[in-house]
Amino acid sequence: MSVKVITVGEDILGANEEKARANKNRLDGYGVLTVNIMSSPGAGKTSLIISTINRLKEKLSMAVIEGDVASSVDADKINAMGIPVIQINTAGGCHLDANMVESALNGLTLDKADLLFIENVGNLICPNAFLLGEDKRVMISSMPEGDDKPYKYPAMFADSDVVLLNKIDLQPHLDYNMDNFLKKVTGLNPDVIIFPVSCKTGEGMDAWVDWLESAVKDKKKR
Amino acid sequence: MSVKVITVGEDILGANEEKARANKNRLDGYGVLTVNIMSSPGAGKTSLIISTINRLKEKLSMAVIEGDVASSVDADKINAMGIPVIQINTAGGCHLDANMVESALNGLTLDKADLLFIENVGNLICPNAFLLGEDKRVMISSMPEGDDKPYKYPAMFADSDVVLLNKIDLQPHLDYNMDNFLKKVTGLNPDVIIFPVSCKTGEGMDAWVDWLESAVKDKKKR
Repeated sequence: MSVKVITVGEDILGANEEKARANKNRLDGYGVLTVNIMSSPGAGKTSLIISTINRLKEKLSMAVIEGDVASSVDADKINAMGIPVIQINTAGGCHLDANMVESALNGLTLDKADLLFIENVGNLICPNAFLLGEDKRVMISSMPEGDDKPYKYPAMFADSDVVLLNKIDLQPHLDYNMDNFLKKVTGLNPDVIIFPVSCKTGEGMDAWVDWLESAVKDKKKR
Repeated sequence: MSVKVITVGEDILGANEEKARANKNRLDGYGVLTVNIMSSPGAGKTSLIISTINRLKEKLSMAVIEGDVASSVDADKINAMGIPVIQINTAGGCHLDANMVESALNGLTLDKADLLFIENVGNLICPNAFLLGEDKRVMISSMPEGDDKPYKYPAMFADSDVVLLNKIDLQPHLDYNMDNFLKKVTGLNPDVIIFPVSCKTGEGMDAWVDWLESAVKDKKKR
């Protein structure tokens, strides 16, 4: 089925990988830790970024690239916090690519930044195939989506450095089998780090923020 | 940005539309009402199909085409109910297309069927661009995803006949502005029918099922 699409996709992926390497070199030059944040629509990418910024703003200099099909709803929220932000509208595109990120980098001053968040388009499939130049890939799986998501969308779970299981405050109201979820995710990706969190209540956020701070320090050392 | 992708996409969309028309003619020949169900991952497509089947199984003959990137988790559930079902695995593809549906139709006996559900891949972006041969497009927006989804993913809200706002049982535990959601959705799509439902508690399901039965009757008359 749809061999044509896959062939074209391979061409695009090759060109994208080259551009992603260039972005990575540039970001390494700034010494900024770059985190690609991916999830389904509404899993909490912007909420996570905002909660994390609030916890780290006295310690680190941060910036954000916001990716969306349409609107600047998320960028407006980040901008209101006084954090440098660039919005990318993909105009129907279902993922960011390295070219789009290059354009955004041209509009940001990053030589004093410690941490750059790239919020990808809300989609559990395509963003995974497109490297952007990031150091870390972080995906959010939202508890109301159900514990079967790693069965249905295995690639993103397999390729992420961190899985944040968000909205755990809703667990009492859901039929969610945490063991099923953890077993499947670690089966796909034995090295993954999983943080159960609630951006709403703050539960679990300290562990995630500690990990992120360590990763920023590691990047500076290199 | 990514003009290449868009150009290729247009070629694919033209070919897809032709195939979708052929599927539509074939399905019209059977007199089966065909419903394309689209949503984010985990918004409740399979739960909706199962709840609806349970309410209509004494009255109507139904069948299901299940689309997923991987796994047959959903098809197994439908099969266990004794309903004819075909699973399509897109192997990384982020939407169904008319070719895939044609292949599935070759494996189903539909001459006595009243209602065919096509469960699309969980994605709020690409499925919208690919007609499959359906009579009705139904999208599910899950309340925990937030009331801002129509701002960020306008195309699918604009092109759906019905929007099911699912998981309303969780509303007391969410910061959800229903007025915002309804205003934006009807702004994008003045003719849309919106059913707030909970597949879990059954709330609101009668209105949806009544609408669906009427649509089946209308199709038979034609």
